[in-house]
Amino acid sequence: MPHNNLPDLMVRPLVEAALREDLGRAGDITTNAIIPADTIWQAKLNTRQAGIVAGLDAARLAFHLFDAGVIFTPLKQDGDKIQAGDCLARVEGPARSLLSAERAALNFLCHLSGIATETHKFVEAVKPHATQICCTRKTTPNLRVIEKYAVKCGGGHNHRFGLDDAILIKDNHIAVAGGVRPAIEAVRKAIGHLVKVEIEVDTLAQLDEVLALLPTAPVDSVLLDNMDAATLKLAVEKVAGRVATNASGGVTLQTVNAIAATGVTRISVGHITHSAAILDIGLDI
Amino acid sequence: MPHNNLPDLMVRPLVEAALREDLGRAGDITTNAIIPADTIWQAKLNTRQAGIVAGLDAARLAFHLFDAGVIFTPLKQDGDKIQAGDCLARVEGPARSLLSAERAALNFLCHLSGIATETHKFVEAVKPHATQICCTRKTTPNLRVIEKYAVKCGGGHNHRFGLDDAILIKDNHIAVAGGVRPAIEAVRKAIGHLVKVEIEVDTLAQLDEVLALLPTAPVDSVLLDNMDAATLKLAVEKVAGRVATNASGGVTLQTVNAIAATGVTRISVGHITHSAAILDIGLDI
Amino acid sequence: MPHNNLPDLMVRPLVEAALREDLGRAGDITTNAIIPADTIWQAKLNTRQAGIVAGLDAARLAFHLFDAGVIFTPLKQDGDKIQAGDCLARVEGPARSLLSAERAALNFLCHLSGIATETHKFVEAVKPHATQICCTRKTTPNLRVIEKYAVKCGGGHNHRFGLDDAILIKDNHIAVAGGVRPAIEAVRKAIGHLVKVEIEVDTLAQLDEVLALLPTAPVDSVLLDNMDAATLKLAVEKVAGRVATNASGGVTLQTVNAIAATGVTRISVGHITHSAAILDIGLDI
Amino acid sequence: MPHNNLPDLMVRPLVEAALREDLGRAGDITTNAIIPADTIWQAKLNTRQAGIVAGLDAARLAFHLFDAGVIFTPLKQDGDKIQAGDCLARVEGPARSLLSAERAALNFLCHLSGIATETHKFVEAVKPHATQICCTRKTTPNLRVIEKYAVKCGGGHNHRFGLDDAILIKDNHIAVAGGVRPAIEAVRKAIGHLVKVEIEVDTLAQLDEVLALLPTAPVDSVLLDNMDAATLKLAVEKVAGRVATNASGGVTLQTVNAIAATGVTRISVGHITHSAAILDIGLDI
Amino acid sequence: MPHNNLPDLMVRPLVEAALREDLGRAGDITTNAIIPADTIWQAKLNTRQAGIVAGLDAARLAFHLFDAGVIFTPLKQDGDKIQAGDCLARVEGPARSLLSAERAALNFLCHLSGIATETHKFVEAVKPHATQICCTRKTTPNLRVIEKYAVKCGGGHNHRFGLDDAILIKDNHIAVAGGVRPAIEAVRKAIGHLVKVEIEVDTLAQLDEVLALLPTAPVDSVLLDNMDAATLKLAVEKVAGRVATNASGGVTLQTVNAIAATGVTRISVGHITHSAAILDIGLDI
Amino acid sequence: MPHNNLPDLMVRPLVEAALREDLGRAGDITTNAIIPADTIWQAKLNTRQAGIVAGLDAARLAFHLFDAGVIFTPLKQDGDKIQAGDCLARVEGPARSLLSAERAALNFLCHLSGIATETHKFVEAVKPHATQICCTRKTTPNLRVIEKYAVKCGGGHNHRFGLDDAILIKDNHIAVAGGVRPAIEAVRKAIGHLVKVEIEVDTLAQLDEVLALLPTAPVDSVLLDNMDAATLKLAVEKVAGRVATNASGGVTLQTVNAIAATGVTRISVGHITHSAAILDIGLDI
Repeated sequence: MPHNNLPDLMVRPLVEAALREDLGRAGDITTNAIIPADTIWQAKLNTRQAGIVAGLDAARLAFHLFDAGVIFTPLKQDGDKIQAGDCLARVEGPARSLLSAERAALNFLCHLSGIATETHKFVEAVKPHATQICCTRKTTPNLRVIEKYAVKCGGGHNHRFGLDDAILIKDNHIAVAGGVRPAIEAVRKAIGHLVKVEIEVDTLAQLDEVLALLPTAPVDSVLLDNMDAATLKLAVEKVAGRVATNASGGVTLQTVNAIAATGVTRISVGHITHSAAILDIGLDI
Repeated sequence: MPHNNLPDLMVRPLVEAALREDLGRAGDITTNAIIPADTIWQAKLNTRQAGIVAGLDAARLAFHLFDAGVIFTPLKQDGDKIQAGDCLARVEGPARSLLSAERAALNFLCHLSGIATETHKFVEAVKPHATQICCTRKTTPNLRVIEKYAVKCGGGHNHRFGLDDAILIKDNHIAVAGGVRPAIEAVRKAIGHLVKVEIEVDTLAQLDEVLALLPTAPVDSVLLDNMDAATLKLAVEKVAGRVATNASGGVTLQTVNAIAATGVTRISVGHITHSAAILDIGLDI
Repeated sequence: MPHNNLPDLMVRPLVEAALREDLGRAGDITTNAIIPADTIWQAKLNTRQAGIVAGLDAARLAFHLFDAGVIFTPLKQDGDKIQAGDCLARVEGPARSLLSAERAALNFLCHLSGIATETHKFVEAVKPHATQICCTRKTTPNLRVIEKYAVKCGGGHNHRFGLDDAILIKDNHIAVAGGVRPAIEAVRKAIGHLVKVEIEVDTLAQLDEVLALLPTAPVDSVLLDNMDAATLKLAVEKVAGRVATNASGGVTLQTVNAIAATGVTRISVGHITHSAAILDIGLDI
Repeated sequence: MPHNNLPDLMVRPLVEAALREDLGRAGDITTNAIIPADTIWQAKLNTRQAGIVAGLDAARLAFHLFDAGVIFTPLKQDGDKIQAGDCLARVEGPARSLLSAERAALNFLCHLSGIATETHKFVEAVKPHATQICCTRKTTPNLRVIEKYAVKCGGGHNHRFGLDDAILIKDNHIAVAGGVRPAIEAVRKAIGHLVKVEIEVDTLAQLDEVLALLPTAPVDSVLLDNMDAATLKLAVEKVAGRVATNASGGVTLQTVNAIAATGVTRISVGHITHSAAILDIGLDI
Repeated sequence: MPHNNLPDLMVRPLVEAALREDLGRAGDITTNAIIPADTIWQAKLNTRQAGIVAGLDAARLAFHLFDAGVIFTPLKQDGDKIQAGDCLARVEGPARSLLSAERAALNFLCHLSGIATETHKFVEAVKPHATQICCTRKTTPNLRVIEKYAVKCGGGHNHRFGLDDAILIKDNHIAVAGGVRPAIEAVRKAIGHLVKVEIEVDTLAQLDEVLALLPTAPVDSVLLDNMDAATLKLAVEKVAGRVATNASGGVTLQTVNAIAATGVTRISVGHITHSAAILDIGLDI
Repeated sequence: MPHNNLPDLMVRPLVEAALREDLGRAGDITTNAIIPADTIWQAKLNTRQAGIVAGLDAARLAFHLFDAGVIFTPLKQDGDKIQAGDCLARVEGPARSLLSAERAALNFLCHLSGIATETHKFVEAVKPHATQICCTRKTTPNLRVIEKYAVKCGGGHNHRFGLDDAILIKDNHIAVAGGVRPAIEAVRKAIGHLVKVEIEVDTLAQLDEVLALLPTAPVDSVLLDNMDAATLKLAVEKVAGRVATNASGGVTLQTVNAIAATGVTRISVGHITHSAAILDIGLDI
């Protein structure tokens, strides 16, 4: 699996903050009152639902940051397909540590696996088409790094990570610039040579404006926004492979295959990051 | 409305981090390339879906932290019921600032309004029963403060905010303690006098053990975990109002009314924080 | 001992900041100039005064965060009664590390042991009464977590940790609400079911108002503020065990036994956190 | 008054952290439940004890950081002598803001005024001698900046702020170096030309060793540690004004005048920062 | 000027940290001792050298973050060509604030203007060729955001901002992958559609391997590393405009024009960020 | 070597931030796409230029903070004189970790070694005079701690670390104070006894004013600002060893020996921190 490559350095601050959020100012007062410090447990992270796992590193970090003595043994890897009842990892150590870090660990694991699972449903739904499923910047505040990672675990692809790593010219930009051509010209002057450009078009007429500027304009992809399948098909034909095509706008599991059938290169789905339900995973002693 | 009482001080770090997450290392390169610095816009935050709004302060902070010169005029208040098409706020200022902060503002507003809306559905679903809908600690990492706030905006109530502000004795605690009585005794010795105690019981037999210790045991609430409606009804009858009752475990919109009908005081629903879809709100120029 | 249960995760940021505060921008320039890097020392943390020890974990962290190679062997546990001359811990490692981290370690250990010791004096002073000694929110800025922990090491109990984990209705709240009853009603609507309520009363008449609302009002404790012993006694009799009683206001070691003799459940003492002298502990090579 | 010169930039992080510590994850739930958002109050910071005020800026920042709309009007300045009943500042604004920020504001103001007041007692106690009262590095963790400031408000002087801004050669340094001379030589090679040097001597013999190296050795001050008054007097005579003299070791209000009478330039008193009781100041509506 | 578009939000943490670094634990003790708090000054930021200005916003923030009452009036804009003696900005406010923030303000302004000026020298040196001057990731630790901005102020262009916003396949990557083709294939599978790819080639043979994969391989630019001008010329001819070309490796002001004459699209110059001398700018009262 | 004494605690935050700056939101996407996770490398940090090494600890931390499993074996020590081709350290571990942390490690090592090397050139240039080379506060924002350390590695000495650890009375201070004497008097009242005083004089007349106040005035050093060599010589003769002398103002490698020949104790050189070019060091696999 190529997915588990987010260095701990990038995940640790999020997990540490989540532990602090849960421990508050007095720590796990229930556990500390009842469980002796020397009770050792072996526990398992078991999934109650089928799906795609993501976030095992975050779960591991939650236990380790609370107590470096906890032994976390993953039995699955991020990106693996899992079935209800599967054990994802063994966790062994002081019962106090397992209980105190449990919720933080699970909140990451369930949330990220939920995103990976929902992404994977879209990836499956477009088959047999080769269309890629992309995420958007509609992510949960401050979790973009790990949510985009979870999308990849689910078989999806990443769109921009922020406002700064690629150009996306939207309708308002075009309106202020006074048209497609001046917008693209303004961008051409500003950007470095390793920055790609996507431009949103809402109509076939607007698409024609963009295509007329090719091949010299710095446009790598057109975002075909809120077009119905018939229009998308025409758009794809007009583009004729000269740039990438990316369909977006209210895509659902019900509509995504029809969109893929139009031949677009990619489909952007906000739903997979902003509205995925969690995958139900628990810690069993 | 009693809801908009989270001081900016508590929300600001989250919003500032979210802006930085989106701006990355180069800022909004598209907008800066195309939109002149002196273009001023009037925009509106409009909802495309009906629901309950939550997070207007976070949205305001997103614009203000990016540019203190943006004027944000809320037309609704957190907790308000909104209809598709409603304008939630007017936002006026430099077009660059509106575009650069838009996504961060919306990601908060859509996420929190989604939680408030989902909570409200459960609140409505239990009617005509007086049962309260409670959230859990199954929240998105590092957003607990504002997600619990959104639950209140939706008419729900808050369970514990963390491991430290109330006691919740779970099955594992009881097992290690060697029974209900020793678990409660251990807790009694440890806690301050302003800390409440809830104890999870999975069976009526276990409930009997707890009730036998009343009224002297420090138990304020019993968490009736994963009981079917018939068992819950019996449990409520056994408790007979001596302590609060709280039903939990896989509650859905389909099952919640039947659970409420058993007479439990509260129902804990993880779904409203961990699996609510966003409410679709956009910025229209 | 039930006291040493603050996870390192919660104490580490405080200790790391304290080390940085002492090291400044150039580190321990005296030690680095004079002491060779390879000089190894065995040192002891010895107390020069009798009292109750608290903060051994913070002391350990001070040495470990500066140099993970230092071996810290505690000979006492937090909460232990110690005599002048007692060795609390052995510390072994590079002389440079011991000297550079010494002051940060001692500042925590002396401060927290001072609080534990002062608390213990009050705990002893109320004997033979069973009255509990409570701390307040009058703590040193940004040290509340560890100061409240030190109070427990000294045999005391914790009052609220902040404005958010319990309700405390004070005179000003009552005045604005328009009386005891509306204040309590307002609170009842707002709080979750795991939040306790204490209400401050300054007079017996006010106490009567509160008691008249029992048993249905959500009141768990009355804070009897600034009453003399005679009045307190009357108050306790009026309450008759229906809710907890908590005496507060200028309590000293001289007055605390008489207050305890009135039969109050608890006595809140700001002094133990805001005005305790340190316990004199030093590092001897 | 020359004292109120700590820029807000340096105090703000401490105050902001203290507010967050008190607000926790839900804010001031009592106040928000009872006090309407539009209730405006005029309140006063009144002292119940005589002393020296310090920390008005921190108190102001506590209110302002919580709510920029609060108007804080100081009637005294840091360093002023105040009498019981004196009003130190007027605070006007939303009642909610005043109540929510009150404790954080007071915890700073009472703590720092306590230090200033205790310092001032020592300053008065040495009269008519010109001896300066100095603080030490025995400060409350993470509050050194403002505690050293409070010492100055009380008429005291600051010793080192950390391990890095001056040399202090202690007994252990001398022991490892193999004597006074090699210790001083090691320091001479290491330090910049704007770093002063103090050396601790425990005996007159050791003092003689230091004095024998003058005037070429880089020694600006001798710390006369744990000497009785008679020995101190001899030491001061030996030094004969060639370097500064600084007496330290268990100094109390009872002993300080006798020490001053020996003619030492300065007396270091750990007590004023590590064991000062607060000054009792309250917020009256 | 299109350059001054880094939002304050992104620069503020750097400036605030720099102020704290300079103020240390006691602030500007010289100024506070000598300058009365009510002395108001008008000062000017004057350059002693000709060059390109960059960093006026950072300078403004330094004064404003120290004292919001300082009035900073820029007379030049970032990117402007300035002559020795030019006034860049007027700064008016309390003398204490001007002196305390001066060094932090100047350290940013001189450093960034130094980079802009050095960049501009390279930009001028390649004329009349249209070759772009690019920066690298060889930036000063933690200042990349503002240093890359300064490069743009000087007329240069930005290469990657980090390891994550574009692909750069280097010699070691190719070696491990087992050749150019497998390296490119591995990348193709991994990246999102808005990520560009540059590949380093050290020889013409390696270049041929890359070119043989066009036009289907995802390669947007070839980095011609450490080639002499003659080889570069051949390389550019081989590429024949199919992808961008970028020359790198020990480029100096002496060699850059000859490199530009080979027809490469871009030249990467580490020197402009890692070794530029400051531009000498001072604050004159 | 006495130089490698900056504790990791003080360097770690800088290195961790630099790694995060380079990793951005997606990490090293090139390396993760191409290099297998189990590829282990042995690499060497080799210098391509002669000079003085500084920053090996920062380089080590860069690799270790990214991956604790990397083995870093230094072959040189900070402060060592190195020749082109010298290996400074061996680095062994996962190829991914080496490549991902390489740039952060090198940016510190090259920058600090550049400063040490440039400092050393000045140190050599003043020979055979004993004059010390000092740095200034003209350092790169937020790197002062490690840049001042690098100056020491190069054989230089440190001037003030900030505005707070020594007094430096400048021309503007004197002007506002109304002369040298009142400025010094104001300082005398304000400072602690372990704070040194340097005063800037621009003319011999001003120097005379200062000297006239000796030996009772608290002046430890005079900063002879922007004087030519002849004037400096006269100044040094006037001072006659009563206080230290420090020449400053536009000092270059060309002029520094002549300045040293005047007999000044120290020469302050801003250039060594604000304008040193890097030392070219690379990682070779």
